Amino acid sequence: MNNQSHLNDLFEFLRIPSISTDSAHRDDMQRCASWLAAKFTAIGLQPQIHQTPGHPIVTARNAHKTGRPTVLIYGHYDVQPVDPLNLWHSNPFEPKLENGIITARGATDNKGQILAHILGVQEYLAANGELPLNVIFLIEGEEEIGSPHLVPFLREHQRELACDIVAISDTGMLEPGKGTMTYGLRGIACLEITVSGPDKDLHSGIYGGAITNPLTAISRLIATLHDANGKVAISGFYDDVAELEQWEREAWAKLPMKDADILNLTGSPSLAPEKGYSALECTWGRPTAELNGIYGGYQGEGSKTVIPSAAHAKISFRLVPSQDPDNILSLAEQHLQKHCPPGVTLTVTKGHSGAAYRLDPNIGFGKAAQRALSLAFPGKDPALVREGGSIPIVADFKKILGVDTLLLGLALPDARIHSPNETFTVENFEGGIRLNQILLQELAKQ
Amino acid sequence: MNNQSHLNDLFEFLRIPSISTDSAHRDDMQRCASWLAAKFTAIGLQPQIHQTPGHPIVTARNAHKTGRPTVLIYGHYDVQPVDPLNLWHSNPFEPKLENGIITARGATDNKGQILAHILGVQEYLAANGELPLNVIFLIEGEEEIGSPHLVPFLREHQRELACDIVAISDTGMLEPGKGTMTYGLRGIACLEITVSGPDKDLHSGIYGGAITNPLTAISRLIATLHDANGKVAISGFYDDVAELEQWEREAWAKLPMKDADILNLTGSPSLAPEKGYSALECTWGRPTAELNGIYGGYQGEGSKTVIPSAAHAKISFRLVPSQDPDNILSLAEQHLQKHCPPGVTLTVTKGHSGAAYRLDPNIGFGKAAQRALSLAFPGKDPALVREGGSIPIVADFKKILGVDTLLLGLALPDARIHSPNETFTVENFEGGIRLNQILLQELAKQ
Repeated sequence: MNNQSHLNDLFEFLRIPSISTDSAHRDDMQRCASWLAAKFTAIGLQPQIHQTPGHPIVTARNAHKTGRPTVLIYGHYDVQPVDPLNLWHSNPFEPKLENGIITARGATDNKGQILAHILGVQEYLAANGELPLNVIFLIEGEEEIGSPHLVPFLREHQRELACDIVAISDTGMLEPGKGTMTYGLRGIACLEITVSGPDKDLHSGIYGGAITNPLTAISRLIATLHDANGKVAISGFYDDVAELEQWEREAWAKLPMKDADILNLTGSPSLAPEKGYSALECTWGRPTAELNGIYGGYQGEGSKTVIPSAAHAKISFRLVPSQDPDNILSLAEQHLQKHCPPGVTLTVTKGHSGAAYRLDPNIGFGKAAQRALSLAFPGKDPALVREGGSIPIVADFKKILGVDTLLLGLALPDARIHSPNETFTVENFEGGIRLNQILLQELAKQ
Repeated sequence: MNNQSHLNDLFEFLRIPSISTDSAHRDDMQRCASWLAAKFTAIGLQPQIHQTPGHPIVTARNAHKTGRPTVLIYGHYDVQPVDPLNLWHSNPFEPKLENGIITARGATDNKGQILAHILGVQEYLAANGELPLNVIFLIEGEEEIGSPHLVPFLREHQRELACDIVAISDTGMLEPGKGTMTYGLRGIACLEITVSGPDKDLHSGIYGGAITNPLTAISRLIATLHDANGKVAISGFYDDVAELEQWEREAWAKLPMKDADILNLTGSPSLAPEKGYSALECTWGRPTAELNGIYGGYQGEGSKTVIPSAAHAKISFRLVPSQDPDNILSLAEQHLQKHCPPGVTLTVTKGHSGAAYRLDPNIGFGKAAQRALSLAFPGKDPALVREGGSIPIVADFKKILGVDTLLLGLALPDARIHSPNETFTVENFEGGIRLNQILLQELAKQ
């Protein structure tokens, strides 16, 4: 393996300031897509740059043959903005290598990880002359801004993108050297509520006591969302929840991530998991109703004795298999309307949603991925984890292409993705290249 | 009575843009104080302009004689800002007289009302050559910014300001031609609470379910402030509440202000008075716990799935006799600490407070004021009302000077004080001048 050449590739890739949200970098986005296309050409794959109303999507493929599986490898070449720039200890677009740690914007998220896939293919071809299966790369430039043009692209190119499995390296790795497979993600369902009272802000001295205060009403309404034990009190909310399986509870209990670590990472006064579950189980495998924002009335310094006309709250539900997001939003709306205090009116606005995702890690491709993790990161058993967050594209792959996704992340807990001084270790870069070579071999066996 | 000359005086007074909160008007404040002093000199009183660290206070007095009562007449010459200026139909500082209605900033609040007092003295002197009692005018220029220098002034000039009763025209008049005496005001006690959870904002996907969400916690905490009937649920809150007297409930029931009017004025979906009380009784004579503001987490468009580090609320209590503001704040703090959900910490910051005020309207000076109202506004029985708001200076007069206050307001419900197109009717201006002549006579009889 030519380590210096790989690092040179990564540094070139990282030097392109491909900030998708900033229109000043529009040309850099094109340049980054061209860089990828050139790299694919150089290693013998057929690239194509697809313009979209936003930033281009790059695809690449080897010569496909019938009778062997097709893997679609997804990633993104766009990066998060870099502000606040003054918190960076070096130029975010001039990669710094020190003590085996690469510091640059996009180092882990996602340039380092997607390049490890590409270089895995390069190394495999260098060693074997030919890939053992059909490969499609799909690399977008709008992941950090919500992938607005990816779903239409999937629908439009459904036939060219037909595959048997998707592989993504864009999730977490529990600790250095411990291969990590994320086989489940929570879903999400969002809504906003507005509680309206008087038709204008009122003086709380003149009218206080005569009418319902929207702030009091919204608080009382929110308080009905959970019971005294912290369980969601919406009727029917848990009806479709798939219980955690015994094997996963046992496996998770053995992971290096303990409840004490979660307490420490959150800086919360104490943990408050659902009764009967560990904090880790709650974040990975139990549904929630969370307030994400609440506001109304006076927020400035001191006091202003007003009864505001309205109060607002943003609520999101994290969902687990087999909860249906639309059903949950309907149940929530019914609950809120039923419990809205008298004297105010309630408006519920449904927001975006996406179902939870869970792959049986012991299907053939799952076993193949676990073998690849074991071989690429020997010495530690691969971790089988779920994550509490949501990756909508995974559900889209399932819905549009009809395939499952292997999430084989290389992002260490201290990689500072989305923050100043983002890092990627050379160890994980090289491990990722190794992993992706082996993964091709193992997936080909299915 | 020289009506045109009085209107000329009022228009001169109104033309001075004495906006206390705006430092650009500092010279106008001095000019306004000088205008008052000149007016007092012109009618034969001895004025004095007292500089303060803020805007000057103007006092004036006649030649005091022993053996007769002393009335202190309080008012203010500063006015509210005028923005949004584009909502004014005429220049706020160029008074417009149309159909008996004067439109200008400060027309009712408080230039028209305090000038009616001054012109009452002028008319009395013109008719009788001498006042029947000792008069002290005390006119400040910082009422609209919280009277920061008035209490120190009262303390410093306690001896010169010694009096038997205070008279103020700065409250409401129920309807045209109905003399109105406000004999009670609610008190106030403010506090802010902060509910703190994690030491930084967290991703609700990654950590949701493991910890207590401060927004949920603050909502549940606020929900404990009232019982299911809307009564304040703080233990001991009602212990010192003086019940409404039968005579006042009967008198208020006969007033032109009905619950339907309150519903209409607030634009609320419905009224929510305390059980056993009318909405009017609740606003004038019952204590409340009101939320004035609440905030935490994401408030922008769409959703951001965050568990915020903290949530905040501003709470104020409206108090009635004989609740003690300090005691109420202590009871509230105890209640909040006791009911704070686990997993978060609570900080309570006490704010400003002031006791409720209630004058027995049938003491001698009260009877005198009622007689003056009857004589000045014949045809309708004077209204005896309380108000739901707080006027801290009234409690300060009681505390520092040891005297009661007669609140004889001329502000009609549609006077638009603090709003664009503030008005004062010529009828109320002339009625006020008439009232204040008679008031001098009636108070002198005590």
